[in-house]
Amino acid sequence: MDIYEKSLRLHAQMRGKYEVRSLVEVKDKDSLSVAYTPGVAQPCREIAKDPDAAYTYTRKWNTVAVVSDGSAVLGLGNIGGLAGLPVMEGKAILFREFGGIDAIPIVLSGQDEEEIVRTVEMIAPSFGGINLEDICAPKCFAVEKKLKEKLDIPVFHDDQHGTAIVVAAALFNALKLVGKKLEDIKIVICGAGSAGIAICKLLMESGAKNFLLTARRGIVCEGEEWLSTAQAEIAKITNREKQRGTLADAVKGADVFIGVSAPRQLTPEMVKTMAEKSIVFAMSNPEPEIYPQEALNAGAYVVGTGRSDFPNQINNVLAFPGVFRGALDVRARDITEGMKVAAARALADLVGEKLSPEYVIPSPFDERVAPAVAKAVGEQARKDGVARI
Amino acid sequence: MDIYEKSLRLHAQMRGKYEVRSLVEVKDKDSLSVAYTPGVAQPCREIAKDPDAAYTYTRKWNTVAVVSDGSAVLGLGNIGGLAGLPVMEGKAILFREFGGIDAIPIVLSGQDEEEIVRTVEMIAPSFGGINLEDICAPKCFAVEKKLKEKLDIPVFHDDQHGTAIVVAAALFNALKLVGKKLEDIKIVICGAGSAGIAICKLLMESGAKNFLLTARRGIVCEGEEWLSTAQAEIAKITNREKQRGTLADAVKGADVFIGVSAPRQLTPEMVKTMAEKSIVFAMSNPEPEIYPQEALNAGAYVVGTGRSDFPNQINNVLAFPGVFRGALDVRARDITEGMKVAAARALADLVGEKLSPEYVIPSPFDERVAPAVAKAVGEQARKDGVARI
Repeated sequence: MDIYEKSLRLHAQMRGKYEVRSLVEVKDKDSLSVAYTPGVAQPCREIAKDPDAAYTYTRKWNTVAVVSDGSAVLGLGNIGGLAGLPVMEGKAILFREFGGIDAIPIVLSGQDEEEIVRTVEMIAPSFGGINLEDICAPKCFAVEKKLKEKLDIPVFHDDQHGTAIVVAAALFNALKLVGKKLEDIKIVICGAGSAGIAICKLLMESGAKNFLLTARRGIVCEGEEWLSTAQAEIAKITNREKQRGTLADAVKGADVFIGVSAPRQLTPEMVKTMAEKSIVFAMSNPEPEIYPQEALNAGAYVVGTGRSDFPNQINNVLAFPGVFRGALDVRARDITEGMKVAAARALADLVGEKLSPEYVIPSPFDERVAPAVAKAVGEQARKDGVARI
Repeated sequence: MDIYEKSLRLHAQMRGKYEVRSLVEVKDKDSLSVAYTPGVAQPCREIAKDPDAAYTYTRKWNTVAVVSDGSAVLGLGNIGGLAGLPVMEGKAILFREFGGIDAIPIVLSGQDEEEIVRTVEMIAPSFGGINLEDICAPKCFAVEKKLKEKLDIPVFHDDQHGTAIVVAAALFNALKLVGKKLEDIKIVICGAGSAGIAICKLLMESGAKNFLLTARRGIVCEGEEWLSTAQAEIAKITNREKQRGTLADAVKGADVFIGVSAPRQLTPEMVKTMAEKSIVFAMSNPEPEIYPQEALNAGAYVVGTGRSDFPNQINNVLAFPGVFRGALDVRARDITEGMKVAAARALADLVGEKLSPEYVIPSPFDERVAPAVAKAVGEQARKDGVARI
């Protein structure tokens, strides 16, 4: 039985992956009148006086909505919100298992940008944070930007920033191994969608300066007619020499290849043209841009993928539970770029002395991960002035 | 320590009343790849092919959103969605405890009718049903009506129909005791808001014919200038003799008084003017329209209130868990008037041979209640052609 058949059976057997439990017994008149009417009027009055009291008297302090319009689900494309629900339920249980968070899957019946924004704004009071998921580019950028402006709780598009944080952490460690500095290296990001652009921005925030992004039609370069809005924006702050050409052109002399695109984009011949001790993160799933052994044979020094059956799995689950745990713990109003960098550095630091080309990033099942990321994110939130407590 | 202080302490101690739990272990690579990527793609594909498969592979089959804009919370008035969250969390745990249902509190930041409708429509795919709660009249009528038209899952405004179902059940039994028929009696409903109007409609659906509703300004009568839209509508099908006057005028000769208004509206003198063996349900909370002993002394034969410390507690929790349990069990597309009447009859029937003036309605903690109501509601859904299975 393959993994898909296994998964289908599990889902049919469990009939969904989460449940809502009561934390309060309601077994008699007295307990009913304390947990519900008339007693419940009192916490209501307190919150009416001071909205922040909702963090004290309700579950808001620990809840995250996992919101998707299903416009870009896994590799399945635009299958709509309802069909994306199994993914959102999966995400919700990862929030619980890895972050101790109460996450609620919210899939949408509409896909209009403004409507998504307004809907999330409308339901936001129930939640301490909003995790956007599987929303297609470029809509995801605008939805997140607008919601960050409108809401006083953290909004985080995991497909962008979760990936970016874990890539950054892996890269910080890989650079130690090859003795290079972020400021000095040339980075090629293959895939100029939401993840690629977010990775570029976070590495830039961390100190990297030299980037080429590539899309299906070639190197992202200011002035190319085929650029999307988001690509045009990133083109203004990358590739200042206005290099044009293919991925093969881009990777010549590059120190780092980061793939968030499609299977088998990077050939061994291309790897051979990269700089000494090159780093290759090939994260297309399930089939990577290049298989690890091919990359290593062609001269790469550190290789990571998105897969659990190869070393250095770059998996979002290393980031989002700890990021939200940390943000919730300090009742953050926002998730700043600094908090993302802090998450990446904390994640990288966990590897410690065991650092090797096969171990630049912790395992998703390393129990230190979420607490360490949460601590760093919470501390940075305070420094950045977005923490309520 | 009074009930309010007790409730506040409980809420602060528990920091909310519900939690989201995982039904699937994610302890290693294999379980992660079955519950989440890549395996989860398969249930997504199945739902993309057939939307009804969401009932098989996700939690949709057992979830209800408890939605409120906080515009009419308990007796506290318009305190807004956030401040109403403790009530919605309370409702959610009652859904769990009494109906085995996964209920999610969704409180809204906006109160515009169209926006509420559109928001619920947008988030509906996640849920098997929508419970509207504490939305003020007349907005609640329009919101519910529009959502029933737009959605293919049950929509139920509990403040209206939950109350109506329990009142109807209590009345069916009380009438047996006094040997009167629904068709023959005169019913006065004091309080012409959402609950009062819903009670009137459901009793009419059940066979009652003779109603007077009263509001603060007097008997609801076609042509009165002060009528709300909803009152004007009900005025067209009640009080055909166009009687005007006060509550005191209305109750003269009435067989039944149903109060969903304010404390101390009904005096013993008024009860004395009612028909022989009168029935008084005084449900204003916490202080009823008349206290039971006063009503009994003045000649009432059966008395009920909304309070747990008097006999015959007319409590919504007798209805909504079973109504939704039954609707979810048959994957209902709607909740029909017939399903509400069936719920009321099932609830009444549970009293059986123990029927007495002090026992016309089961206790909220009678474990037979939700299953019996669910069974009746599900069967009626099939008869009414709104069941998917």
